[in-house]
Amino acid sequence: MSEKVLAYLQDNRERLLEKLNEFLSIPSISTDSVHKPDVAAAADFVSNYLTEIGFTTVEVQETKGHPLVYGEWNGAGEDAPTALLYGHYDVQPADPLELWESEPFKPEVREGRLYARGASDDKGQVFMHLAVFEAYMKSEGSMPVNIKVCIEGEEEIGSENLYQVLEDKKEQFAADFAIISDSGMVDTGQPTVLYGLKGFTGLEFTVHGPSSDLHSGIYGGVVRNPAMALSHMLASLKDEQEVVKVDGFYDGVEELSEEERKLIADVPGENYQQTTGVEKTVSEKGFTAKEHMMARPTMEINGMFSGYQGEGTKTIIPSSATAKLTCRLVPGMDPDHIQQLVIDHLHKNLPEGVTMDVKPEPLSAKAYKVNPDHPLIKTAGDSLQKAFGKEAVYARLGGSIPVVESIDSIFHMPVVLLGFGTPEDRLHSPNESFPLESFDKGMETLVYYWDEVKNTSL
Amino acid sequence: MSEKVLAYLQDNRERLLEKLNEFLSIPSISTDSVHKPDVAAAADFVSNYLTEIGFTTVEVQETKGHPLVYGEWNGAGEDAPTALLYGHYDVQPADPLELWESEPFKPEVREGRLYARGASDDKGQVFMHLAVFEAYMKSEGSMPVNIKVCIEGEEEIGSENLYQVLEDKKEQFAADFAIISDSGMVDTGQPTVLYGLKGFTGLEFTVHGPSSDLHSGIYGGVVRNPAMALSHMLASLKDEQEVVKVDGFYDGVEELSEEERKLIADVPGENYQQTTGVEKTVSEKGFTAKEHMMARPTMEINGMFSGYQGEGTKTIIPSSATAKLTCRLVPGMDPDHIQQLVIDHLHKNLPEGVTMDVKPEPLSAKAYKVNPDHPLIKTAGDSLQKAFGKEAVYARLGGSIPVVESIDSIFHMPVVLLGFGTPEDRLHSPNESFPLESFDKGMETLVYYWDEVKNTSL
Repeated sequence: MSEKVLAYLQDNRERLLEKLNEFLSIPSISTDSVHKPDVAAAADFVSNYLTEIGFTTVEVQETKGHPLVYGEWNGAGEDAPTALLYGHYDVQPADPLELWESEPFKPEVREGRLYARGASDDKGQVFMHLAVFEAYMKSEGSMPVNIKVCIEGEEEIGSENLYQVLEDKKEQFAADFAIISDSGMVDTGQPTVLYGLKGFTGLEFTVHGPSSDLHSGIYGGVVRNPAMALSHMLASLKDEQEVVKVDGFYDGVEELSEEERKLIADVPGENYQQTTGVEKTVSEKGFTAKEHMMARPTMEINGMFSGYQGEGTKTIIPSSATAKLTCRLVPGMDPDHIQQLVIDHLHKNLPEGVTMDVKPEPLSAKAYKVNPDHPLIKTAGDSLQKAFGKEAVYARLGGSIPVVESIDSIFHMPVVLLGFGTPEDRLHSPNESFPLESFDKGMETLVYYWDEVKNTSL
Repeated sequence: MSEKVLAYLQDNRERLLEKLNEFLSIPSISTDSVHKPDVAAAADFVSNYLTEIGFTTVEVQETKGHPLVYGEWNGAGEDAPTALLYGHYDVQPADPLELWESEPFKPEVREGRLYARGASDDKGQVFMHLAVFEAYMKSEGSMPVNIKVCIEGEEEIGSENLYQVLEDKKEQFAADFAIISDSGMVDTGQPTVLYGLKGFTGLEFTVHGPSSDLHSGIYGGVVRNPAMALSHMLASLKDEQEVVKVDGFYDGVEELSEEERKLIADVPGENYQQTTGVEKTVSEKGFTAKEHMMARPTMEINGMFSGYQGEGTKTIIPSSATAKLTCRLVPGMDPDHIQQLVIDHLHKNLPEGVTMDVKPEPLSAKAYKVNPDHPLIKTAGDSLQKAFGKEAVYARLGGSIPVVESIDSIFHMPVVLLGFGTPEDRLHSPNESFPLESFDKGMETLVYYWDEVKNTSL
């Protein structure tokens, strides 16, 4: 079956690339209200494409913000599995414009890469799925599984309305599993299946001392310096071996099995010194950097400030000091509980003579993990290997993709994360691009995947 | 003798206040080049006044910046002591103007206080000295001691050119002791002699991690967070009992004698909770807040910053983190040596995986202290008591006055700090004022002082 579909994709490659360029030419910047008509145009592009392909239900669902495009094709019958494709058609702003070598919304191919805002994140990868659906429908007249499509326009502004829609229309969006291509491979040419994501919680806290900045001569030695108090409190959170010292933080964290340590060891190591510019990497005592990043919880200071920040010296005792913290969580950790443990720790470690107020970050996410041996995951790895000619690696991501956690918690279904981006794609930065090799081999992967998945018993 | 002088001051009070208002009306803001002609006009006011009084040498000495007014009167003869009066005729900017209840350069008396920029700092106090000189010369035809006057126009911009002038013209400015009225009393109505000031040193240091901010998900657990490294380093500098943990920091610090602890205990305690707004004061283990502030070295964080400081959360590992530190020093501590000890401590406590660069603060000052039993100091206390009808207290200041240290180190002569300001004067702030009681009783104090000092054997 797949031969005809693959041939269709090859025969129509130029036309499909042109159609992708049309999609990429729409400046659907969701964060900028000036671009609201462009965001709507991108939604129309998706819905029109779904209609062309032959989706039987196509809806542009209005929300309080930007619309969500829903599509459905049930021609594979009741016995075939149903997959939910999630993606987004909105993009990040393109500025600073002067750093782009070609215009962000005039796609251009240079040295095997397609340059445009959204080429990788996520229009390019959404388009590959749609093109594969087209290839099936035009060459075979049907797709191997039932497909529901959910392409939103607010991913770059925090998916403000998505979760409520999914909750409200749970039945409409329900499926056997979800598939998302909005991520990347661990290295260029290294096919990757993500089987886990970290959860997330955070907070900001401010230590208050004197009611205004004080003269450090006249009041030095009399009042607690809030910046020093903050430093003591922050230092108490994590030791120099990168172990979090908050009571109960690691309770419930599942042990890293030998099998999984092996999987992680097989993921080709990024040269962290080179990519980050640090002289030496550090990681939690007892774990490698890759293990810590993929499979152990972390706590980071994202920002802090107090007192005078200009040139030279200003001899004050600052009236307050603030820090912003986030934690990345692994399965077994509840975001709200961890947030409370950190708050309790800060209260316990608040020095005499200062007070504190805490702003808990309202957004949070649980970690997500699927068994890497799950047939849907194994099939993804096998399909990648067939298309790219290289064994796939199974990796967990140190980051969070909130939509995955939401799909998991609303629908209790596995999420297949098949990302075709590469570390060189410059997401959210000037000169975003996507390799044409990923475009071709990615679509090939999807064809192998659908052909195989239709036989998977779920 | 003093009766005639005091009578002159009383008889001429209105005229003298008008003359002071003329001085205060000149917006001699040294930091703002727009006001350069006003600064020059204030210098002329001082030099003209000295000429009117009968000073035999009066010079407006040009510098690279604003001029310095020098005056000399040697009529008391070779056997009489020679005093050097230091003060400044420049003022701080007056903004924000909208917070002034009357215009900053249109002096106005309200409820016994004279409101104007410079009323207390330092035009008002300089003027009192000049008025007393006038009273002596006009009523007695002579002053009790020989007087040299040094009134500069750059105090509010760090006395940029003063120290070089003093070095270059050491012989011209040499005297038996110096007298300065550019400070205040510990409490309104509580006459105060300052017999010590703290020294000063500082530095800024930056901890560098990755070459740019990193995604806290993708790199969390792999690299050392510079903000956390900074917190550990800062926390290592001082413990929660406010004891500085830098090796050698307290070496050479002189013990606080029981006598001095008694003197300090006699200084009326400011209600620190009320003036600073803290719930609880803290001080170095083993010392009261007043002892710590006046007579023990301190270390303060004046500012720090790292990463994201805006609203909400940005999930980054910051590329760097910076802190600004200053120390206030007591006699026995060398500023350069202490600065180096702190730098050494930071290097020793720099965690793996980050680097550091240090910007030592180029300005520094040694602590200054004169024996509170020195006859020049005792005479100051006695004169204050006679004028204010209340026993004077002998206090050390937690702050630094760099000119005092310079006079001490260039001329090796005692400096008498006779300040008539009050804690309510709002120096450097909107609605600066000076109590007329200080004006009257301060001039009376100076008359008693000069009359007594002429007999002091130095």
